[in-house]
Amino acid sequence: MTSILIIGGGGMLGQGLARALAASGSLAGRTIDLLTLFDVMTAAAPSGPVSVEVSAGDLAAGGAAERLIEGRPQIIYHLAAVVSGEAERDFDKGYRVNLDGTQILFEAIRAEHLRSGYCPRVVFASSLAVFGAPLPDVIGDDQVLTPMTSYGTQKAIGELLLADYSRRGFFDGIGLRLPTICIRPGKPNAAASGFFSGILREPLAGEEAVLPVNPAVRHWFASPRAAVGYLLHAAELDTRALGGRRNLTMPGISATVADEIEALRRVAGDEAVALIRHEPDPAIEAIISTWPKAFDTRRALDLGFRPDASFTAIVETYLEDHAQDAPQ
Amino acid sequence: MTSILIIGGGGMLGQGLARALAASGSLAGRTIDLLTLFDVMTAAAPSGPVSVEVSAGDLAAGGAAERLIEGRPQIIYHLAAVVSGEAERDFDKGYRVNLDGTQILFEAIRAEHLRSGYCPRVVFASSLAVFGAPLPDVIGDDQVLTPMTSYGTQKAIGELLLADYSRRGFFDGIGLRLPTICIRPGKPNAAASGFFSGILREPLAGEEAVLPVNPAVRHWFASPRAAVGYLLHAAELDTRALGGRRNLTMPGISATVADEIEALRRVAGDEAVALIRHEPDPAIEAIISTWPKAFDTRRALDLGFRPDASFTAIVETYLEDHAQDAPQ
Repeated sequence: MTSILIIGGGGMLGQGLARALAASGSLAGRTIDLLTLFDVMTAAAPSGPVSVEVSAGDLAAGGAAERLIEGRPQIIYHLAAVVSGEAERDFDKGYRVNLDGTQILFEAIRAEHLRSGYCPRVVFASSLAVFGAPLPDVIGDDQVLTPMTSYGTQKAIGELLLADYSRRGFFDGIGLRLPTICIRPGKPNAAASGFFSGILREPLAGEEAVLPVNPAVRHWFASPRAAVGYLLHAAELDTRALGGRRNLTMPGISATVADEIEALRRVAGDEAVALIRHEPDPAIEAIISTWPKAFDTRRALDLGFRPDASFTAIVETYLEDHAQDAPQ
Repeated sequence: MTSILIIGGGGMLGQGLARALAASGSLAGRTIDLLTLFDVMTAAAPSGPVSVEVSAGDLAAGGAAERLIEGRPQIIYHLAAVVSGEAERDFDKGYRVNLDGTQILFEAIRAEHLRSGYCPRVVFASSLAVFGAPLPDVIGDDQVLTPMTSYGTQKAIGELLLADYSRRGFFDGIGLRLPTICIRPGKPNAAASGFFSGILREPLAGEEAVLPVNPAVRHWFASPRAAVGYLLHAAELDTRALGGRRNLTMPGISATVADEIEALRRVAGDEAVALIRHEPDPAIEAIISTWPKAFDTRRALDLGFRPDASFTAIVETYLEDHAQDAPQ
């Protein structure tokens, strides 16, 4: 029997993860007896054979983290964050949610550890934003972290804290630098990366989409399904294989915007591609120009994390998972 | 006219810096009109033509940082820290002083920036402890930070915060990863690195010293005089040359313990060397084995930071600065 807590359980990844866990009913070979979703707003409970509790609150507010840890969940996913654009616009909110929230959670776990020896697996969603220009074309596992946004700074600090708390034995942590998720379902969010999904998602639904950057822009992607796979695998793997390096860049697909458009054409035809309108936005161009293009993720691949097969597979995966969103 | 604040002004480096500033009476071509030393205990005021204020308190306690920033010092040295051994033994104290204290200071500066446009130079003492094994024999400026102690974690986080607050324009920060200071004057402190100085300082004073590691152990050193020189230069240099990379490994001398002993022999003879007793301590051996051995500090050298000339020069410097401590 195992109990799982997803902080940020109302977000896109949290919901995907919750659905996968509720559908399978087990993780790491153990039956899930309770799945708790925590978020700032009440998250939707997935259907399935698993007991689900949903609670809403502010992780950084007094007592919230302690209440979540009281039930001593064996596996804790920490996916909650203010996204990059918002953390850049609102310095206080970004630090409060992304840094203070993480510290408060880790301290609540440590307090329970000191009381009872509790030592859960903690899976932390980090980000490619920990990397900053100048970057090599292909980034290895030993790349120095030089974030160029407050969001990236907050995630890099979370990684350092995760590693230190794990080294001390307060919990058993693993941090995943997730690729940019593509195709994000639903509505655009405040992230500067939003168009990477928008130029596929909107045309697939028969709607226009704006492309604010040059089609030669290259970036690093994973489907929601692959990302949920990483999160599941991170709860199951033997962390002794990590040594002292608790944070890993996740595998992905390196693709240009032109590659994205070609995949769209293969899957949905020229009429879908015709719905993309190129309107260069120098502000977004400037942000994206500093972003990573491709990674050599040997460590994660050796540890068994499995990426999408191709960019076309990413588009097909989206259509399988969101068939009802397509116009035909 | 310029006003300077040294947080950690009672420590070894803070006192050396204060003496150098008080003696010169100017920094970056401007007359120093006020030098404030802040520490947990009342720091000694240096003699010289400069007005000195000394205050004692806890940087992480409510209101302390705000009071220090009230006078809007143009240059702030943040040297205060719980040392590595103590931060490892006392997790709460290490995080409170080394992380919370730094965040509270940076927030107090930001608050004044938001009120008045205040934007001081902030010189932050970081540490080689941001690096962790496995390390190459010679570590470059792009080495990934993988601290293996809580102290190193806290310093790495301080670096990230310094870079982000500087990028945002709240202050103009520069972080210096100082080499292990050798020869530290005075009494041993709680740092695991204490013997690197002890095996020279004690024999130079006619006293026995214990060497707890193999003489082949190699490490990275600067004299207190060189380190003070780095701190002075960091307040004067044009930070535009740093780009987004606000933290730098400082130049130093790469030497083995055997090199140290040979320098001692050259300067003080065989009878001084005979006062070193080799008593291997597996705990200290284990800690030191993960430490850096040598660096390629091209960035700092290009920026004008100047190291000691040799390890023998380090010993001679000590004797010049502490002639009264020697027995003859």
